[in-house]
Amino acid sequence: MNPAAMTPDDARAAAERVMARCDELAAISEQPDALTRVYLSPEHKRANALAGDWMREAGMTVWQDSVGNICGRYEAATPDAPALLLGSHLDTVRDAGRYDGMLGVLTAIETVRHLHQQNARLPLAIEVVGFGDEEGTRFGITLLGSRGLAGTWPGDWLEQEDQQGTRVVDALREFGLDPHRLTDAARSLGDIAAYLELHIEQGPCLEKADQALGVVTAINGARRLNCTFTGQAGHAGTVPMTQRRDALAGAAEWMIDIERTTGETGPELVATVGSLQCKPGAVNVIPGQAKLTLDVRGPQEGPLEALLDELLARARAIAERRGLTFQADEFYRIAATACDTGLQHHLANAITEVQGSAPHLPSGAGHDAIALADHWPVAMLFVRCKGGISHHPAESVTTDDVALAIRAYAHAVTNLASEPPSPS
Amino acid sequence: MNPAAMTPDDARAAAERVMARCDELAAISEQPDALTRVYLSPEHKRANALAGDWMREAGMTVWQDSVGNICGRYEAATPDAPALLLGSHLDTVRDAGRYDGMLGVLTAIETVRHLHQQNARLPLAIEVVGFGDEEGTRFGITLLGSRGLAGTWPGDWLEQEDQQGTRVVDALREFGLDPHRLTDAARSLGDIAAYLELHIEQGPCLEKADQALGVVTAINGARRLNCTFTGQAGHAGTVPMTQRRDALAGAAEWMIDIERTTGETGPELVATVGSLQCKPGAVNVIPGQAKLTLDVRGPQEGPLEALLDELLARARAIAERRGLTFQADEFYRIAATACDTGLQHHLANAITEVQGSAPHLPSGAGHDAIALADHWPVAMLFVRCKGGISHHPAESVTTDDVALAIRAYAHAVTNLASEPPSPS
Repeated sequence: MNPAAMTPDDARAAAERVMARCDELAAISEQPDALTRVYLSPEHKRANALAGDWMREAGMTVWQDSVGNICGRYEAATPDAPALLLGSHLDTVRDAGRYDGMLGVLTAIETVRHLHQQNARLPLAIEVVGFGDEEGTRFGITLLGSRGLAGTWPGDWLEQEDQQGTRVVDALREFGLDPHRLTDAARSLGDIAAYLELHIEQGPCLEKADQALGVVTAINGARRLNCTFTGQAGHAGTVPMTQRRDALAGAAEWMIDIERTTGETGPELVATVGSLQCKPGAVNVIPGQAKLTLDVRGPQEGPLEALLDELLARARAIAERRGLTFQADEFYRIAATACDTGLQHHLANAITEVQGSAPHLPSGAGHDAIALADHWPVAMLFVRCKGGISHHPAESVTTDDVALAIRAYAHAVTNLASEPPSPS
Repeated sequence: MNPAAMTPDDARAAAERVMARCDELAAISEQPDALTRVYLSPEHKRANALAGDWMREAGMTVWQDSVGNICGRYEAATPDAPALLLGSHLDTVRDAGRYDGMLGVLTAIETVRHLHQQNARLPLAIEVVGFGDEEGTRFGITLLGSRGLAGTWPGDWLEQEDQQGTRVVDALREFGLDPHRLTDAARSLGDIAAYLELHIEQGPCLEKADQALGVVTAINGARRLNCTFTGQAGHAGTVPMTQRRDALAGAAEWMIDIERTTGETGPELVATVGSLQCKPGAVNVIPGQAKLTLDVRGPQEGPLEALLDELLARARAIAERRGLTFQADEFYRIAATACDTGLQHHLANAITEVQGSAPHLPSGAGHDAIALADHWPVAMLFVRCKGGISHHPAESVTTDDVALAIRAYAHAVTNLASEPPSPS
């Protein structure tokens, strides 16, 4: 049997429960006056216990996997059916907002709760996972939870240290996990049919479009580089403008180029100079060196790579014309993750059902879906957040938007679990 | 009687003495491996003693004045005649070069030595002063020596503290001076006819013009401002280029405006952004704030003020167009000091005599002549330095250039002291 769609009243009640539970989780923090909850901490353990209780209450069998993810399963009509996996993460950045990650876990629990209340069993099982680490706050390496489930932990991650010098391997033991059984968390390909994630947008696009919900087309790939212009320091009073080799002026020209060139590519690619230092850095000295970072992101690898090449070529041209040298070192690279078009279609239908239309947008931020996409089709549903603000205590969503999101999510999940998707 | 002009051989010998004495003074430092000699330090006392010995040897009567300047007087043909004052400073920045300041004191001593050897007495006396503080390295306030001689110390300077918390008043006592007798250093208007200063250029213009010597037209006035663009910090991945209020991008646009606008005014005005910080300053966050300094200089107040007004208007226009705010606070202002045209003419004649022509150029850096110009006509002779480098151990002048400079200086001084100038 197919269950009845969730009514607006049911969705409203579910949304209120989700909002209250976000508050409850936000109180589980290493600081009394701010939300910080990191991987393998005592707060992680308490959050897992609480989420596990809610999963059980929603009709799931619950376990904590070998990398510390909290997992729940709602059985299908037949035993051992593959699962539609729903989830997001329970860890936070420092001084975080209370919806980034948690909203995806709690809304997933509500969709299962809805099925459970109707005693509905579908061709696919539904599993919900609260990942133990997405942000990388503690160890500086990200997606530890979802990469554990995907079985893609690099060998050297166990030796990574936090700021106190505690290695991942020791933290796992302190948490009560056995580092030798890490790979137990890895799921077989056939266990999971697809992965869906609901998340706050963390950007301003839905708010600007006056829409509560949107379908994610891709999770942007990213490149990060440390760049340096080097010229000649000099006396700010004695060197005429025409005889300067001002490294900061070169960097300024490039920053304007970055902004204009990236803007000209259209709405999807973004490029940011987030930090800049110049040396010697005195009011009366022409800067001989300017160090800056470049962060470039986009939903497709080709255009992203082409933009980066173009920006670096412009930097080299500026340096040559100004008698400077330019050096760029890429220190971070992640490929763009396309969302499955079949899953996007299901999400778009469900969103259209509740809000009349379904805007599509790329995700500028990274998500657990990146790790899952190594093995399974993935898709994401975004919920509008106030001012696009995230990673900040001011992070905010409305109960109305969450109610709409739960209705759409439950609708999509029910449909997908009733008619298993064939990966496109 | 007018003394004979200095021969090239005499000038060469004098230049070699000057170079050796620069080396000797450079060894008087608070650090063994770098030259740092600050106001009212034990090294200041040793440098004064050495310079006093050289003054005495050159035929002068010598005293240390009440603010710690070392002074020598070579009497005129008649007693109590006004003096042509020559000099520069004996203090240094940290990790300094050995010619900035010292070259002016030692070449002045050589011009007197030349007169003394010929037993020549002129209508004007010649005085030489080695100022105790020009750089402001110790107390952060500059020109303490020359302002003491000019009688223009502000009342609050005695309470200024160095980095160890020692006040000027205490440092004077430790040096053996009586703070109550500070004003004894102030010279009467009639004591001094004019002030001449020889100094390294500290810039690249003479080297670029392939000339050893030049006449300074004016000492640039300066304005220094702390400026802030404020926008909105945001996620580098989630905020589209068109929805950003990037404070650093605004600052970059302004920096390019500063460079172009200043360059378009011609060769004299200069403007520098020497330091820049942005917040929050992370690779993956759009900067919400950019703080930068602006240093603007020029030889004439009118064009300098007009340029500054124009640059600030451009900053405000950029901020408005980008949805940023802009704030500028001037924290330092010094007026342009014009050099006396009659004295410039004398210097130009003397320089033309030895090198065939006399380039004129403004001084981008500040000098003791600024303080003296409050009461007396001043002029300056610049000597080329290698690569325009100064305030650095690599500061360098050639013995040939110094020999040429001494010939021109002695020539101008003899002429001026023989025919006292009427201030123009």
